[in-house]
Amino acid sequence: MNCEIICVGTELLLGDILNTNAQYLSRELAALGIGLHHQQVVGDNPDRMRESISKALAESDLVILSGGLGPTADDLTKEICCEVMDEELVLDEEILQGIKNYFSSKGLAMPENNSKQAFVPKKNGIVLKNANGTAPGCAVEKNGKIAIMLPGPPRELIPMFENEVKPYLAKKTGGVILSKQVRTFGIGESDMASRVKDLLNGENPTVAPYAKDGEALLRVTARAENEEKAARMCDEAIEKIKQRIGKYIYGIDCQSLEEKAVELLKKADKTLALAESCTGGYIAKRITDIPGASSVFEYGIVSYSNEVKQKLLGVNAETLDKYTEVSEQAAAEMAQGVRKLSGADFGLSVTGFAGPDAASDGRPAGLAYIGFSCAEKTQVRELRTGKNAREYNRYVAASNALHMLIEYLSERNDKE
Amino acid sequence: MNCEIICVGTELLLGDILNTNAQYLSRELAALGIGLHHQQVVGDNPDRMRESISKALAESDLVILSGGLGPTADDLTKEICCEVMDEELVLDEEILQGIKNYFSSKGLAMPENNSKQAFVPKKNGIVLKNANGTAPGCAVEKNGKIAIMLPGPPRELIPMFENEVKPYLAKKTGGVILSKQVRTFGIGESDMASRVKDLLNGENPTVAPYAKDGEALLRVTARAENEEKAARMCDEAIEKIKQRIGKYIYGIDCQSLEEKAVELLKKADKTLALAESCTGGYIAKRITDIPGASSVFEYGIVSYSNEVKQKLLGVNAETLDKYTEVSEQAAAEMAQGVRKLSGADFGLSVTGFAGPDAASDGRPAGLAYIGFSCAEKTQVRELRTGKNAREYNRYVAASNALHMLIEYLSERNDKE
Repeated sequence: MNCEIICVGTELLLGDILNTNAQYLSRELAALGIGLHHQQVVGDNPDRMRESISKALAESDLVILSGGLGPTADDLTKEICCEVMDEELVLDEEILQGIKNYFSSKGLAMPENNSKQAFVPKKNGIVLKNANGTAPGCAVEKNGKIAIMLPGPPRELIPMFENEVKPYLAKKTGGVILSKQVRTFGIGESDMASRVKDLLNGENPTVAPYAKDGEALLRVTARAENEEKAARMCDEAIEKIKQRIGKYIYGIDCQSLEEKAVELLKKADKTLALAESCTGGYIAKRITDIPGASSVFEYGIVSYSNEVKQKLLGVNAETLDKYTEVSEQAAAEMAQGVRKLSGADFGLSVTGFAGPDAASDGRPAGLAYIGFSCAEKTQVRELRTGKNAREYNRYVAASNALHMLIEYLSERNDKE
Repeated sequence: MNCEIICVGTELLLGDILNTNAQYLSRELAALGIGLHHQQVVGDNPDRMRESISKALAESDLVILSGGLGPTADDLTKEICCEVMDEELVLDEEILQGIKNYFSSKGLAMPENNSKQAFVPKKNGIVLKNANGTAPGCAVEKNGKIAIMLPGPPRELIPMFENEVKPYLAKKTGGVILSKQVRTFGIGESDMASRVKDLLNGENPTVAPYAKDGEALLRVTARAENEEKAARMCDEAIEKIKQRIGKYIYGIDCQSLEEKAVELLKKADKTLALAESCTGGYIAKRITDIPGASSVFEYGIVSYSNEVKQKLLGVNAETLDKYTEVSEQAAAEMAQGVRKLSGADFGLSVTGFAGPDAASDGRPAGLAYIGFSCAEKTQVRELRTGKNAREYNRYVAASNALHMLIEYLSERNDKE
């Protein structure tokens, strides 16, 4: 099955919004094993839309459209696409009532325009429910071609694709589709990919590598008659992946290092305190991105100056004199210091050169020391990113700190 | 002049990368008054590329291509586009030497493949310099059509567009093109747009509103015979904008609130300390995003718990008992406390409910108190975002804190 995507919206042609839908849909289609060969963006212009849709349907088995399902006069995707496919649109009273209910639940009357959204394909289509807005999507299947029409806002499009389109496409290709994500840390994308190279060529399950925010991940997607079997297929592939790169895997189906760190802290009923120099609050920010982080994280110090390091964290003046503030010794004392000051179970610290410039003593941007301290031990890891990029260096240093904590807590869990 | 964009790259069709180039180019073209009617993405497939480029050149005056200028066998944009336009490519010895120098500066020998990048249009084209990579771009003009070929990586494409393509297109449309950005805070995009509505219809200069990260901005772009005149035209438009929404403008041509805050602190030779509760280090992170922030920011406390607020910041137990930790009074004491503890000139504090859930006492997510303290005074602002979105609430609370500082420092500057 080959496929084409058409995103509709003048705001995309003006550059007002970033086309994240195109990436999302492309990635999902790749995971489903559906070959995408063309993406287009057209404005809310009937003639151009007609031309693009006709051409796409002539060349592809499946055309996925996003945008232009709104209530205003220039929202024309459904009308034009059904016209091109010679499919009549009819009013669906139930959907109309649903839209009216949506408005009345907000204490509003439905504007007359919105009734347009209750028109659906008469004969050769199905309706795709929208749990997050008024515009339902639809799929029309005719003469061996399929057109799927989705709303433009990602918070409507993504759940509709997940819950309505995937099962629909799974039926077309047979069965259910299930994806699981394997998250790694400390291994590059190409290194990871080369170690699981043979798995990347599989057709079912598919295994696809991604690099995201300096981490490498693998997505495993299986197609099967039922969910149980698809899950088993995913798990078998993940087992093989674990054999190759197990020591780099920190989570299956979790979202981020910070989510994993908070989850493990909660599980262990332990608390964390932070002393951040070059990351300047970035670890604290990421930890507190997670709802409920307050139960495990109470205390963070951003200690940009040596004075704060000494006065508040109790780093020795001699340490700073002898080894400088960017040193293994300073990182260790910062991690110990903040743990003691706060009374938390664990202390994490980062001190380094974020860049973009090298340090005045000639040491490179991207050099950082990351300290971890608990009751039994204090350890420090040296990081050298080799890059001058400030944001990258800060993000990666924060990630390394979170990963040190995760490693400790994971080992602790394994022992229990 | 009407235009079409073609982004080339199988990685875009697989969803491995987000197509930020399409947004960047679309926005730039809109600012230049060039009408964009179609975007396409095609993979590294010669037949499909040939078809897309031919069709685009038939329908548009200007076709901008990005990607596919690399050294490998599947980088074919230049070859296919010049074939379609019947333009011969020839080796440019000077460019070849430049590429060799680029490698030798990194202590490497040029791989043989890279010589392919030194081929340029023989008769009807110009070369576009690449200051950030080995692949030069080029423009071919033939039979009343223009094709511009740019490298795919944004850090190469953007400077090339700014420095090479804009002047080239300016010549085609006559003169130079200059853009200035007006940044506002505290006014919504639609409110801002309605107050400058008449200016948005201008053709030269153009004034375009954007919303970015919860802020509203206006971009003013003028086309003129020379830079001086273009600058004067921009300034005249900005003067009109100031008359309408002057009190919301915090910067012209600066990049962010944090950049402005650091700039003003440096100018005033003053220092800042932070006490963050619900923002959890987000303000510190944004401040330290700015290189050189260490000279004005030394000291940040992330005080998630009441214990930290009391012990370290000296917030009164009675204040917390009587008004709770999310209150005007707590914010004031936190800002004062961190200023005194650190010895900094200014203290900023945030305490609130980030969400996504409402507080246990029923107060809504998005409620925050922001404190500012200096030697003369301490003041607190209440923020109610009305949203349950954690990231948004935290970002906007941090922005409001930065803006309180900017307001104070701007008034101070005005007085001097």
